[in-house]
Amino acid sequence: MSSPSARVTIKDVAAAAGVSKGAVSLAFNHKPGVSEATRERIFAAARRLGWSPNSSARSLSRQSADAVGLAICRPARLLGLEPFYMEFISGIESVLAERDCSLLLRLVDSLEEEVGLQQRWWREQQIAGSILVDFHDEDPRISPLQEIGLPAVAVGHPSLTGGFPSVWTDDAAAVAEAVRYLAVLGHRRIAHVGGPRGLGHSTIRTTAFEQAMSELGLEHGPHVETGFSGEDGARATRSLLLAGDRPTAILYDNDIMAVAGLGVATEMGFSVPDEVSLLAWDDSQLCRLTHPTLTAMSHDVHGFGAQVARVLFDVLEEREVTSRPVATPSLVPRASTAPPPS
Amino acid sequence: MSSPSARVTIKDVAAAAGVSKGAVSLAFNHKPGVSEATRERIFAAARRLGWSPNSSARSLSRQSADAVGLAICRPARLLGLEPFYMEFISGIESVLAERDCSLLLRLVDSLEEEVGLQQRWWREQQIAGSILVDFHDEDPRISPLQEIGLPAVAVGHPSLTGGFPSVWTDDAAAVAEAVRYLAVLGHRRIAHVGGPRGLGHSTIRTTAFEQAMSELGLEHGPHVETGFSGEDGARATRSLLLAGDRPTAILYDNDIMAVAGLGVATEMGFSVPDEVSLLAWDDSQLCRLTHPTLTAMSHDVHGFGAQVARVLFDVLEEREVTSRPVATPSLVPRASTAPPPS
Repeated sequence: MSSPSARVTIKDVAAAAGVSKGAVSLAFNHKPGVSEATRERIFAAARRLGWSPNSSARSLSRQSADAVGLAICRPARLLGLEPFYMEFISGIESVLAERDCSLLLRLVDSLEEEVGLQQRWWREQQIAGSILVDFHDEDPRISPLQEIGLPAVAVGHPSLTGGFPSVWTDDAAAVAEAVRYLAVLGHRRIAHVGGPRGLGHSTIRTTAFEQAMSELGLEHGPHVETGFSGEDGARATRSLLLAGDRPTAILYDNDIMAVAGLGVATEMGFSVPDEVSLLAWDDSQLCRLTHPTLTAMSHDVHGFGAQVARVLFDVLEEREVTSRPVATPSLVPRASTAPPPS
Repeated sequence: MSSPSARVTIKDVAAAAGVSKGAVSLAFNHKPGVSEATRERIFAAARRLGWSPNSSARSLSRQSADAVGLAICRPARLLGLEPFYMEFISGIESVLAERDCSLLLRLVDSLEEEVGLQQRWWREQQIAGSILVDFHDEDPRISPLQEIGLPAVAVGHPSLTGGFPSVWTDDAAAVAEAVRYLAVLGHRRIAHVGGPRGLGHSTIRTTAFEQAMSELGLEHGPHVETGFSGEDGARATRSLLLAGDRPTAILYDNDIMAVAGLGVATEMGFSVPDEVSLLAWDDSQLCRLTHPTLTAMSHDVHGFGAQVARVLFDVLEEREVTSRPVATPSLVPRASTAPPPS
C-alpha cells in the first residue's frame, strides 16, 4: 500500500502549472476566474501528473477503504428524536450494504471540526469518500475538502455546495406550494418557523416563503429562526399565538416542531384547524399519529438517502456524475389545515 | 505498525498449552469443562506469549483505530422507522464524540455475515472494538469473535452473551411488572406480541410473560411472534381481536407495533381502552402522540446507548469491567389501559 504522503495533490498540480490551488479548483469546477490559456495549462499539468479532483480517491477506494463518511453537526439528543436522519441513514445503508460498504458516522460540534475530521479520515484511509450534509451559506468545508481531493457527494442545492456533485430537494418549489395551498384556503397571515440562520436550505426556504407571500400580495408573515428541536417549535408557536396579530396558519420546517406546536396550540386552547392551521415538513410517521393528523410537505427520505449513496458510488467508480434533485416534496393534506376563522 | 498476521492469537496459546481453542476460551471465560490443571497450563502459556482475550486489541486501539463497530441485523426500512435504534445510536455517539471516536455502522442480513464483517474490520484495523447487539440463543458470533480477541461490549443479558462484558435491561422484571399491572386492573386474558423466535431478549420476555401469568393463576394468553415492524403489529392485533376468546389487553414488545395495533383496534371499532387495553415497550415520543396516548414500559434509550459506549471504553482502556444492567424499564401509565369491560 503506498503511503498517503506519496499521493499527488492539488498542490503539486498548482506548482507544476505555476498557479494557485484556488485556480486549479476553479478550472476543474468549470468556474470563471481563470483564462482559457491558464485552464489549459492546469489541465495539462494534471494530466502529466495523473491527477484529477478525485483520482487519489479512486485508486484508494479500490485498494482498501470500504467505508464512507458522514459527519452530522447536530446535538446528539436531537438526532435521536428527529426521524429525518434515521430514515436518511437507513436509505444510505440500504445501498451501502449491497456494495459491502459501511458508514463511518460521527457527530461534530462545528463545521470546522468536521473539516479536520474528514481530512483525517481521508489521510488515514478510513474512508473511500464522504457524504456532506447541512451546507451553510459560504460553507467553510468546500475549499479545504476539495483541496485534498476528497471524493464526496453533497446533499444540498448546487448554489451552496461548491464544485461537489450534489443531490437535493427543491425546497423553494415545495415552500411555494405550501404557501399557495394555505392562501387558497383563505389564509392571509401565515407564519414560518424555520431553521437556523446561515444554514443553506433554511435560507432557501425562508427566501422562497417571502417571495411566495409577496407574489400573492400577502404581507411577510412573521418568520422565526430555530434550532429544529421540539422545544424550539413549542417556544416559537407559543410566541406566535400570543402576538397581537397572531397568524391563522403556521408552516414548520420539520415534523417534530409541528408536533410540538400542535401540543402548544391545544394547551393554549386554540382549536386546530378551526382557529389555527399547522403544516409540517418531512412527514414521518409522527404526522400520521397526532390528533388531528398533520398536513405535511411529504417526501421519501429513505429514497433520498439511497439516491445520495448511489451518486457517491458514481463518483467513486468514475461514472459520469450529474447533480440532480430528487422528487420535490409534495403536499399531503390531512386534518390540521382548514380555512381560517371568518 | 506490526502486521496483523504477526499478532499472537488464541490458536498460538492453544498450541502452546496442548489444548483446543475451545478449551482456552472456556478457561478465560471461567466456564466449566476444563480441569484446574489444564486451566493453569493455559494461563501459563498465555502469560508466556503475552496474550489475553483482548491484548491484541488493546495494543492496536492505541495505535490506530479511532472507530468502533456496530452491525445491525434488521431490514433497512425498519431501522428508519423504529425510534429505538436512532436513540440508542445517538447515546453511543454522545460518548464517542467526547473521545474523538467514530461509529462504523453496517446493516447485515445474518449473524454469519456479521461474523465475517467484524473479523474483517478487526483484521484490517478499521475498529478498536465493537458493540454487539441482538443476541440470539446460542449466538453464533460469540466463539469466532472471542477467538480473534475482538474487544467488545455485548448488549444483552449475560446468559446470552458468552464471555463478553455486557450491558442489558432487566426485561424479565419489566415484563412481570407489566403483567401484574394489567392483572391488578382486572384483566384475565392478556396477549403478548413479541419478537422473533430465537432472539435472546424476546425469549427472555416470552418466558417471563408466561411465568408471570402462571404465578397470577392466569391461563397462558396467546403469544404471537413477529419481526417488530408496524405491519407485523397490525397483523397480530387483527388476528388477536378476531379470535373467539379475544384478549382484553395486549402487551407489545416495541412501540411501533403498539402504535399500529392501536390503529387496527380503532379501525375494527374496538374502543381503546374501554374494550381493549394496549401496553407498549420502549416509550419513544410516538407513545405520547397517539390518541389515546399509549401506556408504556419506559426506559432511557439514549442513556442506555451512552452506558454501552462507556463500558466499551472501559474494555479498550483496560479498566476493570463489570457487566451491569441499566435501569429497569418502568411503567408509565397513560390513556390506553383501563379495567376490562365488565
